[in-house]
Amino acid sequence: MTGPAPRLVRACRRERLDRPPVWVMRQAGRYLPEYREVRRKAGGFLEMCRDPELAAEVTLQPVRRFGVDAAIVFADILTPLEPLGIDLEFAPGPKLLNPVREPADLGRLTVPEPWSGTEAVERALALVRAELPEEVALIGFCGAPWTLATYLIEGGTSRSFSRVKRFALTWPDAFEALLALLTDAMAAYLRRQVEAGAQVLQLFDSWLGALSAADARRWALPAARRLLEATAGLGVPRIYFANGGAHLLHDLPDMPCEAVGLDWRVDLGMAARALPAHALQGNLDPGVLMGPADVIRERTEAMLRAAPRRGYVANLGHGITPDVPVAAMETFVRTVREFVP
Amino acid sequence: MTGPAPRLVRACRRERLDRPPVWVMRQAGRYLPEYREVRRKAGGFLEMCRDPELAAEVTLQPVRRFGVDAAIVFADILTPLEPLGIDLEFAPGPKLLNPVREPADLGRLTVPEPWSGTEAVERALALVRAELPEEVALIGFCGAPWTLATYLIEGGTSRSFSRVKRFALTWPDAFEALLALLTDAMAAYLRRQVEAGAQVLQLFDSWLGALSAADARRWALPAARRLLEATAGLGVPRIYFANGGAHLLHDLPDMPCEAVGLDWRVDLGMAARALPAHALQGNLDPGVLMGPADVIRERTEAMLRAAPRRGYVANLGHGITPDVPVAAMETFVRTVREFVP
Repeated sequence: MTGPAPRLVRACRRERLDRPPVWVMRQAGRYLPEYREVRRKAGGFLEMCRDPELAAEVTLQPVRRFGVDAAIVFADILTPLEPLGIDLEFAPGPKLLNPVREPADLGRLTVPEPWSGTEAVERALALVRAELPEEVALIGFCGAPWTLATYLIEGGTSRSFSRVKRFALTWPDAFEALLALLTDAMAAYLRRQVEAGAQVLQLFDSWLGALSAADARRWALPAARRLLEATAGLGVPRIYFANGGAHLLHDLPDMPCEAVGLDWRVDLGMAARALPAHALQGNLDPGVLMGPADVIRERTEAMLRAAPRRGYVANLGHGITPDVPVAAMETFVRTVREFVP
Repeated sequence: MTGPAPRLVRACRRERLDRPPVWVMRQAGRYLPEYREVRRKAGGFLEMCRDPELAAEVTLQPVRRFGVDAAIVFADILTPLEPLGIDLEFAPGPKLLNPVREPADLGRLTVPEPWSGTEAVERALALVRAELPEEVALIGFCGAPWTLATYLIEGGTSRSFSRVKRFALTWPDAFEALLALLTDAMAAYLRRQVEAGAQVLQLFDSWLGALSAADARRWALPAARRLLEATAGLGVPRIYFANGGAHLLHDLPDMPCEAVGLDWRVDLGMAARALPAHALQGNLDPGVLMGPADVIRERTEAMLRAAPRRGYVANLGHGITPDVPVAAMETFVRTVREFVP
């Protein structure tokens, strides 16, 4: 006998619920003392990602502590670039030791067929699924093709995105080929995550906001759309996190996914009008969790009142930052859980 | 006998012109070999800012090389924080040695009366004015109050803006007092710049995009508005650069200034409809200057076609980056100068 689908899945399907589900991007993170403890023992971030037991442990920590409605498997969006032939380091930011700088470098990238090389993530998903209460959803994820392309070409995070834009403008065909390769690889990776137990998938387009509307329409959005189409048959809801996409609100209705994640710059009421057929996720400013408890409650309630009644997932508008007090996260989650619409 | 007002001034006044004026944010910068040469001799960035002859020299370089329609005085937005009692370093990013962390720290800040401490900038303006052809406008500038407050509290640039948000949410009255103090100081500083020869003023709200719409309406926009009101009597056009403000497009019509500067995420045609009473400035993605010449021309022409016929200033949507080839900047400027609407 199985119970109803997890609250997060039902919200993505826009079912009527007594309260919205809540989880937080980067909820397994440095603001949590028990996370820092595991990380200290493991020796570093990549070591945690590569050890399924440790990854499962930190994935479960915020569920135990806060009673959030979803666990998101602990991994990095760059993890699935390693099977393509990319050498990664975190020092402490991500560093790709052999980035793609010219079209000829594409020859070095190969998508394993069948997909392999992310077994640690898949095992972590299975371990978490076995531990997780039935009503708590397990989220798998990947970076969207444009966002991954920025890392592949810049070799890490960037402020100006000069290298990836130079590549895309100078060698448009090679850039399309790179986006297509990343789309294929991520489709295979996401399928494996679902097979391993993921019940919801999130695509992080973390650097969508680096693009003008015209270039987002040329590169980021079509590639994300193709990846969403490739995962439509997996039978799980997909959330597209359009970070920095306030200027693209009227393009997002075309995304073939169940839910759209919004950063905190987007007005939630305006987004609900622009996206009537999607569930929405977000979007409290993580900086609000630096304020006193009454302000956190007030701002969270304002967000919940602006949110659509059906098809809504409470979350921050970006990852929780390491300096947020644990009590602030507690206040945020409790405010959602106790909210009476 | 004096000729007509400079092209930039006339564009801000929304006069009919045969072509729009063009200048580029950070046009006196590291992408220019003659700039790097002066910087090397001076020993560093702050040394250049503090020497009026050197500051004037690098201010004039892009006018000589590219024939741009404006020179913007070489200074940093943090320069006028020194007279308030802030100790600055660039190593190489800005570092405030005695940031504001609590309301009690506000007691350390004093606005000189009469304003003093920015004589190097004022002398640089006078030196540039004496050299500049009559048709080329001289721009003075400052940071907008919210943006300056982020530096004062974070102690430098930030990714999360956790400290400034903590301060603003925890001590709202002290934060308002800080914004008011910065508004008064910048009003005095801008007045001095006009007295020294500035013919146009630009307010850089570089970190407007860190705020949700609600918080921008509470903190950044009202403070910028008060500063614009305080400079309305100076008789020069004022440009408000709303960086990262795509989510605030419909709030910008209320800004009491002649022109609004837009970053590259904003659709220029949509901005023109939202802001019929303002001149617009911007907004080519600086990353486009990393592409080949034909792409630069094509994208620049597309921008010019989307721009309003009257009241338009061609510019990038952000500062030019150090890796842009000089030839790319030449192509951009030439494309604007030769554009036939």
